[in-house]
This record gives sequence, C-alpha cells and structure tokens, in this order.
Amino acid sequence: MSRLFSLSARQALEGIRRREITCMALVRACLDRIRAVEPRVEAWAFLDPDRALAQARDRDRMLAEHTSLGPLHGLPVGVKDIFDTADMPTENGTVLHAGRRPAEDATVVTLLRAAGAVILGKTVTTELAVYGPGKTRNPHNPDHTPGGSSSGSAAAVAAEMVPLALGSQTNGSVIRPAAYCGVVGYKPTYGLISRSGALRQSRPLDQVGVFGRTVEDAALLADVLMVLDDRDPDMRAQTQPHFLEAAGAEPPSRPRLAFVKTPFWEQADATARAIFAGFAGALDGVDEVELPSVFAEAATIHRTIMEADLAHSFAAEYARGKDLLTPTLRTMIERGQRTLATDYRRAVEQVPGFVRALEGIFARYDAILTPATTGEAPAGLASTGNPIFCTIWTLCGLPTLALPLLRGPEGLPLGVQLVGRRYDDARLLRTARWLSAPGM
Amino acid sequence: MSRLFSLSARQALEGIRRREITCMALVRACLDRIRAVEPRVEAWAFLDPDRALAQARDRDRMLAEHTSLGPLHGLPVGVKDIFDTADMPTENGTVLHAGRRPAEDATVVTLLRAAGAVILGKTVTTELAVYGPGKTRNPHNPDHTPGGSSSGSAAAVAAEMVPLALGSQTNGSVIRPAAYCGVVGYKPTYGLISRSGALRQSRPLDQVGVFGRTVEDAALLADVLMVLDDRDPDMRAQTQPHFLEAAGAEPPSRPRLAFVKTPFWEQADATARAIFAGFAGALDGVDEVELPSVFAEAATIHRTIMEADLAHSFAAEYARGKDLLTPTLRTMIERGQRTLATDYRRAVEQVPGFVRALEGIFARYDAILTPATTGEAPAGLASTGNPIFCTIWTLCGLPTLALPLLRGPEGLPLGVQLVGRRYDDARLLRTARWLSAPGM
Repeated sequence: MSRLFSLSARQALEGIRRREITCMALVRACLDRIRAVEPRVEAWAFLDPDRALAQARDRDRMLAEHTSLGPLHGLPVGVKDIFDTADMPTENGTVLHAGRRPAEDATVVTLLRAAGAVILGKTVTTELAVYGPGKTRNPHNPDHTPGGSSSGSAAAVAAEMVPLALGSQTNGSVIRPAAYCGVVGYKPTYGLISRSGALRQSRPLDQVGVFGRTVEDAALLADVLMVLDDRDPDMRAQTQPHFLEAAGAEPPSRPRLAFVKTPFWEQADATARAIFAGFAGALDGVDEVELPSVFAEAATIHRTIMEADLAHSFAAEYARGKDLLTPTLRTMIERGQRTLATDYRRAVEQVPGFVRALEGIFARYDAILTPATTGEAPAGLASTGNPIFCTIWTLCGLPTLALPLLRGPEGLPLGVQLVGRRYDDARLLRTARWLSAPGM
Repeated sequence: MSRLFSLSARQALEGIRRREITCMALVRACLDRIRAVEPRVEAWAFLDPDRALAQARDRDRMLAEHTSLGPLHGLPVGVKDIFDTADMPTENGTVLHAGRRPAEDATVVTLLRAAGAVILGKTVTTELAVYGPGKTRNPHNPDHTPGGSSSGSAAAVAAEMVPLALGSQTNGSVIRPAAYCGVVGYKPTYGLISRSGALRQSRPLDQVGVFGRTVEDAALLADVLMVLDDRDPDMRAQTQPHFLEAAGAEPPSRPRLAFVKTPFWEQADATARAIFAGFAGALDGVDEVELPSVFAEAATIHRTIMEADLAHSFAAEYARGKDLLTPTLRTMIERGQRTLATDYRRAVEQVPGFVRALEGIFARYDAILTPATTGEAPAGLASTGNPIFCTIWTLCGLPTLALPLLRGPEGLPLGVQLVGRRYDDARLLRTARWLSAPGM
C-alpha cells in the first residue's frame, strides 16, 4: 500500500508540481487509508470515493495541459459537515437536517475548489456544532473522545486520511480537537475567513479554522481562505495574506512568550498542569504573566452571548423537533430563550475591553503560551471535553494555534496553545513554527 | 445690522476665500442674529460668544498668513449637544448630565475644527436624543414644535443663526426637524460618519446627519465628516467622498423617482397627503411604487431594537435617576429591559432582508420620493412629532434627505424626503439638488 497519505500537504504539493506524484495516486492512497482506519475512527459524515477520484482525474488533466495551477492543486481536503456543499449532503450533525442538500457551496468550499483542492468528503461535526458528540473516536485511542465540534476534521488529519481539513470554532471547536488528536489547529483572527454558507451558531463568536499536521500546512490552507466576502457582514478587509511565507520565516530575534495560566488553571488536571509548567519553565524567554482579574468573567460573558445566539439561530430546529436535540443543547437553548436583550448587549459590549486589556501583553510578547485543554482527551465518547482554555481567545477573536508538542500520562497528545494579537496572524504563525521546529 | 448671516455656507466660504468677508465679520453677524432671534427660538444649549470670536480671529490670522485653508475655513457650525466637546459642556439634554465636561472632542468635532470651522456652540437636543422635548421652538411659528431630537440644529439653521449644523438620527431625528423647520437635512448611509464621542442610543441604528439651507451646503459639510475612524467599530471604509461635486453635477438623464406612500400613509394628515400626492403627480418620471408587505413590520422591529438598546445604553442613568427621566423614556427603557435577546437578535437579523427587498426599486429608480413627516410641525411643544416616515430608512441605514419644497395649510414647511441606495449617497445628493433647483 502506498504511503503517500503520510505526506504533509506541502510535500504532496511539491511531488505533484514536479510530476513525481499524480493527484490520482495521492487521492487513491488517502481513500485506501480511509478504508483501513475509518472503521476504528469514524471521521466521515459523507464520503464519495468516485466523486473524489473524478476530481483527481480532472486535476491530473490540468497538470498534463500545463494549465496554471492553484495553490492547493490536487490536495485532498476534508470539510466539516457544517459547510454547505452543492454536490454532497450537509447535515450539520443533527437528524433534523438529515438529507439536507444545499443549492450552493459555502464561500470557503468555492475557494478550496478554485485553489485546485479535491474535496474528499464531509467530516463529522457534533450536533449543530455544539457539544453533542458525533460518532468519531480519537485515532490515538478509540475509547477516548477526539474532542469537538470539529471532531472528524481533527481525527481525519491525525489518522492521515487527509493532510488538510476545515473546521470552525465558537468556543473551543478547532483548538480542542486538534490538541486531543495531536495535530496543528489554527483559528485565525475573527473576521478573516468568510462564514457565508456555514451553519451559524453565533455571529459575534463563530470563526472558521483549519487543521494540518504542520504549521506550514495550516498556513498554506489559511492563505487560500482569506478572501473578503460581502456575504459575511463581519469580515474585515485585509491585504493578501502570505502566511505560508510568514510561517517559514526565521524570527528576527528569539520570540518572547507570555506563559498565561488563565483564571481557569485549577480546572486543568494536576498532571497536565505539571507537564505544562515544566514545558514553559524549560523554555528561554518565557515569563509567567497573570491576566487582569476581569478575565474571570469571560466564561460567563461567552455563555451569555452563545446561549442567546443558539436560541436565535436554532429557533426553527427547536420549534420543529426539540425532542430530537440532546438535553444539553436543549437546556442551553432554553436558557438562551430567557436571556434579556440588555444582558446580551452588555456581554457583547464588554469584549472590546477584554481585547484592550491584553494589549499590554502583546506590546511585550510575541505570543501567549497557554494550555489548549484541561488535559489529554478524556476517556469515553459521551462528552467532547472541556473548552475552557479556548473561551477567552475565541470571545476576543484572537488568532490561536494548537501545537502537538507534549504527551500526557496516558500517552495521548497534550496540546500547547499559542495566542496572538488580533490581525497579527503572520507573527503568530512564525512564532508557532519556530516553537514547533526551532532548529529549522 | 450685517446680513452676512443669510449667506449660504458656500457663499460665505467664497467671500472668505476672496478676502471680501472676514471670519470675524461672519461670526459677529451670526452672533448678532442669535441675539435677536434666540429669545423666540431657543436653539442653543450652550453658547460662548467670546470663544467663537477667538476662533474667528484665529481663522482670520490663518487667512492673513496664507496658510492652506480647510474646506470649512471660518464657517460657523452648530453642534448638537450629544457630541462631546472638550471646551464646552455636553449635557445630552438631561439634567442627569448637567455640568458634564468631556475630556475629548468627538471625532466629528475634531474633523470640523481641522477643516477650519468655528464651533459656535452646542444646540439643543431632546432628552438623551429620544422624544422628550427641549426648549426649542419652531422658527416659523414659536407655538409649534421644531421636531426632534436635533431640534436646536434644525431651528438654528432655519433661523439663519448658522449656515450649518450637526445632528443625529436613530429614528427620525434629522429628517423630521429639518422638514418641520424648512431646511435641508441629510442623513448619510449608516457607517459613513464616526459616532465616537457621540451619545450612544443604539449601535445598529444611530447615524450622524447634517443640516444646511441648500443641498450643496449639506454635501460640503458631509464631505468633511466621512473619515474612517477605528473608534467606531461599525464604520465601513469608503473612498474619499466628493459629495459637493456630485451635488453640483447635472444628472446624465432625467432622474426617475419612485413615489412610495409606505404602509404608514394613512397616518399622515389628509391635507398633507393631498399636497404630497399632487406634488408627486405633477413631476415627470415619477411612478407610484408599493413597498413589499413585509415593511408593515418595520416599525415594530425598529422599536424592538431601539428600546432594548435604550435600556442597555442608559442603564446607568436609569439606575441613578429614573425619576428624572420623562415618563415616555422611562416606559421605553422598561419595555427594553424586558426584551428577550432572541427577539432582539431576530429583529437585527431581519434588516438585511429589508435592504434586499428595496433593491428592485433602486435598480429602476434613482431615488424614493416619500413624505418626510405626517404633516406640518404640530402645534404645541409637548411632543416633537411623529417619526414614522423616517423609520424604515433609518432601520435600513439608507441615505436620506429632507428637502423644504412644500408648504402645508398652516403655512408651515412640509418636507419632501428622498431616499437612496446604500453607499450611493452621491447619486442621492445629485438627484436632490436637481429636484430642489432643476433649472440650475
């Protein structure tokens, strides 16, 4: 069996460009790999090998014709099943949307296709991208959760079924599964990737993210997705990103990191805390920095916004089939239904103050270093784990990466999280690549 | 007594640039005029003649030194008392803010000063820019309301105390007083003028507007104010406006107008309806167009947003002195306190649908022609009149102008309202100038 599925996205791209690998061979290798490991991992909500192979054939034809090639030419990508696809179902992880066939691709899917990617299939999401687990298991140990809500995307990349995948984060849905599955997860600054055609949970919180097995692969994918789209009213115009280049650049001087335990430190497992503190302590140029006390409220504020928005976004689902929702989601929606507009507005308006309160740290440090999760992926599939170490950064819309640098006592991955200043994703990626592979 | 106060802003500017008028003479003429008519009109919340004269002296010195001149050099401007001024009190029309002295100028005030304007003083606003009347009277008949909330700005321009003034609109607070007082009021597209340093009522609804006695004067003032400001998170970057030029341009062909009665037509006085229908009927190239039925809900949606936002924005005022608020405002705040977040979110999210529903009209017509108010300024000072003919356009953030083209049965001004497509303010101003002075 071909080992092409193990290549990083950049290695595969290089092989394709040099005509050493055909897109067909690469896609076939990934499909074979899926056939072998999917029964154990269950990362896919929808997979159509024939359609994937047809796309690969088309990409090879373009290669033969020397048509100018997109930046993801021939690369298989997994797409979380909350992004609309015109040629595959999009079921959003709920039976209430079973058989749903969108008319149009989500903007990010259009961008992937235009970049030459092969959309391999749709990856498993939790129920409506909230906390109700899907069928996916952790590739490192199938008795443990892969995390969520982008469970299938993280697991598929970790299990080498695809080199790249798309996810989304409203609380910890990219960083947590990336950390549990031991891959790189990158959630860019709020507003840099269009959410048009993606399931909406919460307009001020929803953010698109990416998965890869290296920081450069995540940067490669993000570069393609950051295109201003009028159909997402909250996007902010940016100059064309060159994140792949940024990720590959040598930092001008040794990066300085602020080790932030957050007000939620005590919620982490004792062993995870010890491992993490040891890791931070062993690095040069790392200072422990305490967050202003106001951040203790961040989780409450996040919950106020998210639950009210869930009640709004899923009003039709609740009306049509609340008994088909998990009790957790139903409870969240019902709390959201009772939330007052003034409490919602107050919560939203507190966010800029949080962002400002972090400016002092980013004036002195290249990035915040903090745990990605409370520990290794918990045993059992009934929960996708605790997102608390992601909440502040998602609420503030800061760019953040999970890096698979540590192992926990069970031998499962333990993620390191790096957080950057808003819109300074380039520096964050450079710092993350440096931390992952300092010798490069 | 000098008649310089009667000059339009552009005439005055021309005189100053040619050194035929000194800034001092112009400001003195305005101050004399104020002394004469203010006892009857009561347009000013704060006026400091010495400070105004000192600014004029400074502007004359700049003229003498041939320093390059700003686009409003030497022009007296009235500023609604909801915009912060570092050198004058800003009391927001409530005793709860009596003696309030902001530390910094609002962004629009900074822009006015940079453009060379002379900030003459602060004009009367209704209570917290909502419905509770201030002391101002209609210059055409002091027993009638001037409208609100930008009461003083509209009345000051109408009474020739200043050629230009600043206001704001959350429902009908620029267009209504402009129509009642018989001046030009212009509320640009949502997001084109910074609200930083202005009293906030409602983030999705608040919009800054301007008053002048001609369309060109309004365009001149607006040109200066449209500068992207990071401190207003809802601004949208635009290329530098050239509205004065646009207003002066001849339309390439005869503008086509859609006469829209709105679902609220029956709320207008019978005589006003007859006058308005006669006016629209007499114009060439005007078709009556009916709005989609969904717009009947617009007023309810606007109220849901506005009341919840009042409860949020004025939570401190309510807590500190609800007994010092007018019963109307207190009732609105209390309804807003009970508004659910989901109702608020649903209301906000319906707005893009309304905007889209108007696209068909703007594809065929240069502007919507519709009443500015339900009739002439009502008798009495206990109410500032009904904003209903402004509600849809404010909710949708469309650019809109009041033009003083008609008179009612009492001999008071009756305003014509023109509404344009979002971000197509230039065409709206050109159409408005053409309608006001077709022979020009």
